[in-house]
Amino acid sequence: MRIQVGIIGAGPAGLLLSHVLNLEGIGSVVLEARSRDYVESRIRAGVLEQGTVDLLTQSGLGARMAQIGLLHRGIELRFRGERHRIDFPSLTEGKSVMVYAQHEVVKDLIAARLAAGGDLRFEAKVDGLDGIDTAAPSIRYTQHGAAKILDCQVVVACDGFHGIGRTAIPSERLRVYERVYPFGWLGILAEAPPSSDELIYARHDEGFALFSMRSPTVSRLYLQCPADVDLGDWPDARIWDELERRAEIPGGWPLARGPVLQKGVTPVRSFVAEPMQHGRLFLAGDAAHIVPPTGAKGLNLAAADVRTLSRALVRWFRTGNEDLLEAYSATALRRVWQAERFSWWMTSLLHRFDETGPFGQRIQLAELDYVTSSQAAMRTLAENYVGLPFAD
Amino acid sequence: MRIQVGIIGAGPAGLLLSHVLNLEGIGSVVLEARSRDYVESRIRAGVLEQGTVDLLTQSGLGARMAQIGLLHRGIELRFRGERHRIDFPSLTEGKSVMVYAQHEVVKDLIAARLAAGGDLRFEAKVDGLDGIDTAAPSIRYTQHGAAKILDCQVVVACDGFHGIGRTAIPSERLRVYERVYPFGWLGILAEAPPSSDELIYARHDEGFALFSMRSPTVSRLYLQCPADVDLGDWPDARIWDELERRAEIPGGWPLARGPVLQKGVTPVRSFVAEPMQHGRLFLAGDAAHIVPPTGAKGLNLAAADVRTLSRALVRWFRTGNEDLLEAYSATALRRVWQAERFSWWMTSLLHRFDETGPFGQRIQLAELDYVTSSQAAMRTLAENYVGLPFAD
Repeated sequence: MRIQVGIIGAGPAGLLLSHVLNLEGIGSVVLEARSRDYVESRIRAGVLEQGTVDLLTQSGLGARMAQIGLLHRGIELRFRGERHRIDFPSLTEGKSVMVYAQHEVVKDLIAARLAAGGDLRFEAKVDGLDGIDTAAPSIRYTQHGAAKILDCQVVVACDGFHGIGRTAIPSERLRVYERVYPFGWLGILAEAPPSSDELIYARHDEGFALFSMRSPTVSRLYLQCPADVDLGDWPDARIWDELERRAEIPGGWPLARGPVLQKGVTPVRSFVAEPMQHGRLFLAGDAAHIVPPTGAKGLNLAAADVRTLSRALVRWFRTGNEDLLEAYSATALRRVWQAERFSWWMTSLLHRFDETGPFGQRIQLAELDYVTSSQAAMRTLAENYVGLPFAD
Repeated sequence: MRIQVGIIGAGPAGLLLSHVLNLEGIGSVVLEARSRDYVESRIRAGVLEQGTVDLLTQSGLGARMAQIGLLHRGIELRFRGERHRIDFPSLTEGKSVMVYAQHEVVKDLIAARLAAGGDLRFEAKVDGLDGIDTAAPSIRYTQHGAAKILDCQVVVACDGFHGIGRTAIPSERLRVYERVYPFGWLGILAEAPPSSDELIYARHDEGFALFSMRSPTVSRLYLQCPADVDLGDWPDARIWDELERRAEIPGGWPLARGPVLQKGVTPVRSFVAEPMQHGRLFLAGDAAHIVPPTGAKGLNLAAADVRTLSRALVRWFRTGNEDLLEAYSATALRRVWQAERFSWWMTSLLHRFDETGPFGQRIQLAELDYVTSSQAAMRTLAENYVGLPFAD
């Protein structure tokens, strides 16, 4: 039996695609290398754009998010000991963002897919793709020690940056654009009430810090660190001290401390692969593009890809018209590059870059002064943070 | 006899300062190493911000500018074969800019100073400054072979980037911020009608080009070139061909050609020296800061410095109150850094930078797409181009 859409990866992109297609009567199978437990507890991004919130809500996934998500109407920029708030609704005609962890979105999606009888195959490791240049592509995979084949009409790789999907496209057909930054984010999840109701993006001579949260009792905090940082050098107390130092508030700042539940390093990378399609294989989300975490665009971009691709697939399966499918890569990439630009800019604005020297540091402060004093500049930050319009 | 203000340099900054001080009854002497002919024909910038136009007009210097200056209500951004107009009045509540060459401003200023009996000493080369830490500073200079001394109450160095003024400040008191770009601008002045009514800023894979004008019959055109370019490699025909190529208009573009009157290379550099004051010595204009020519901020920054400094000097001479004089450096530098930021940004947006690679090129195009599609982003360009508000 040839299923309509074979989806590789049960992250937010793959699951959302499967869910949205199902609402339109299109069948899919999702293959995921990891276990359900693993993907449901994998800590990732946590800020949803207005458009992502709307998309989830409209497809029936808004209930838990409305209950435990935190609506955020602004962020704070902190530098040179000053505090400046960027107010989203007044700068974007009423838009805002939702702080709701990616693994909660994943839990909602898995629950919805299973409730609808969806075919999610966990611990199913994809070994290769065949026939993506033909009308009969298939996915070879191994589950519980058995080699299997999934025959599809279309394959969508939602298997992330390190996934196998992108590698199935002949390298001479793929153009890759990449910037690897010389630093990472040292992140902790801590049982401590957030010291602010909104996210704080702090620029400090020693490096960036982000004060974020998962809930009213759990903080999510980050420090810019060397890319090859040794976590052994960063006992909890040093992390808390450094966070307070980078907040740079004269007279100190009441940063609540608490047990550290998790500690890790996030790489900071910009990456785009073009095109996002080859024959009957389509790429969506991190499989095609990575943004630095500054600006929280990764999950939102994946959702936008899925929205564009699902509409194109619906049209094709219903009418046989390929126009939207053929336009998918170009359509998605326009928005991808805008998010890449914003994420690169937010990263440049807030991180320490040794290579730009003292002139670069002063330009950075001048840019922060500009962004916090010009209404137009403030609006550029806000309209990108809450999310630029979808592609269509 | 101790004069009130000794001014080094008869460029726009020094002359405008002398003129404005005279209107307030404060005496000055201007020392200029070059001849009057030389400074009146030195080709430099040519775009005046709204505020600079207002400042010149309010101090009685607007007549010729109103006659032969060209009012520009926008610029064009050209990239990827597309043309996008940035309309200044609609984005900045009615503001615009004036295309009026710097040497015309200099001619107006010299005429006005001489008509008012002003003391301008040409071919007077400054050899050194003495006593700038005291209440009795003086300028040593040589004119027509004779060594002379000018005793002043205050010395203002308006003698440009290579001038002697800044070097009189002890180096341990001066902080210098600098970026030298790995390219220059190859510029021609040509007897050819401009092919567009407004300036065209063109981004091309091979490098930046600027299509500008001096009058309805004279074009001013620039190409990004290597910093160490050999003009011998650039006969006129090659320059015209390259200009047309970088305009990148499908089907060609009617670029009128004509005799090249002048050809030269402008270095591209960002530079700021802090502070802009030491004792009784003040720096204004290029003596303290340089911007890349992209965005045309150099002359305008000099005018803004003069405006801030003249107000402070007037207050001090009239009342003995030093507050504005002491604040001069910090006040001027806030605006300086905003202009440095904008000039650096416009340069980054439009030039080819080999070191940022293919990712940087795509980010540049994404930024151009953003600037030409978001009203907020368009407004940031426009409000900086017509000039941010003066410091006070």
